[in-house]
Amino acid sequence: MEMERSRLVFSGSGGQGVITAAIILAKAAAIFEGKNATQSQSYGAAARGGATRSDVLISDAEILFPKVIQPNILVSLTQESYSKFAPVLRPGGLLLCDSRYVTPEKKVAARHVTLPMYDTVMEAIGKPIVFNICMLGTLIGLTNIVEPESIIKVLETTIPEDFMEMNRRALDLGFKMGDEAKA
Amino acid sequence: MEMERSRLVFSGSGGQGVITAAIILAKAAAIFEGKNATQSQSYGAAARGGATRSDVLISDAEILFPKVIQPNILVSLTQESYSKFAPVLRPGGLLLCDSRYVTPEKKVAARHVTLPMYDTVMEAIGKPIVFNICMLGTLIGLTNIVEPESIIKVLETTIPEDFMEMNRRALDLGFKMGDEAKA
Repeated sequence: MEMERSRLVFSGSGGQGVITAAIILAKAAAIFEGKNATQSQSYGAAARGGATRSDVLISDAEILFPKVIQPNILVSLTQESYSKFAPVLRPGGLLLCDSRYVTPEKKVAARHVTLPMYDTVMEAIGKPIVFNICMLGTLIGLTNIVEPESIIKVLETTIPEDFMEMNRRALDLGFKMGDEAKA
Repeated sequence: MEMERSRLVFSGSGGQGVITAAIILAKAAAIFEGKNATQSQSYGAAARGGATRSDVLISDAEILFPKVIQPNILVSLTQESYSKFAPVLRPGGLLLCDSRYVTPEKKVAARHVTLPMYDTVMEAIGKPIVFNICMLGTLIGLTNIVEPESIIKVLETTIPEDFMEMNRRALDLGFKMGDEAKA
């Protein structure tokens, strides 16, 4: 990856693991790849039933303002979050959506990638809890924003050993999907 | 609690659950008490082995900048994080430290409250994983920043039922400790 600043917004609904995914990515970049990263979210009217949003900034330089104004990467896991946040995506940015939950409208001047992340996880593993890890894998396959191994290292510090295999599989399923969609 | 803006910094080392505690508090305030809240952290040099810091802003008004410049409440769970962040505490603010991990230096013009949160959890429950929940309980006992019940409601949405009893006990132990220290 070039020396650049990545501005990501992860969005979806409560319980999809959007915030956890954002924290894992920020840790992977900072702790295991020597970057600076911030991760933030606002809770308010939106948190009381609406779309959840979590921001991650990754940079080689110090980051002073931790909130993303105009993301160059947006992940949307629900139609509501897609409708709400797609308009703020930087023109030419990347928009990753889940095909079960989002029907993109193509009004946005972004690269749309819509993939069956949820369905793939449910078919291969049967546990919705790793949907967010599959999503991270897909994002990494598409963008190479961090190495998959850095995500694994973060997970190893936070998840019981019994659950690692399931997480590895979800990450790998996503990575392959993203990598193929890139080509 | 009056109409005011609370600016909190939770600090400690990786694995003490400082970030999780910050997220739980922000959700409790926003989802169950109708406030606005943001939660953020930076990962960088500090995350690669140093003090962890997580910021929470709680306000009745909209919050535009999610990072805390000068906290009025600082929680420090390690000596290193105490030394690093105590100087930025607002004069007259509240500094909550854990007595096992921190020996306060009283150089800061703040109200110091040093309590055996870790030791109490280990003695009564024996599980370090709920140290952070005991710390939240203590903070609430001291400040009434949210209702304990709002923390329970957040936990109920994220923690398996089997673990709720342990978390309730840890929160309650902390709440009583904080409430007594306030009087």
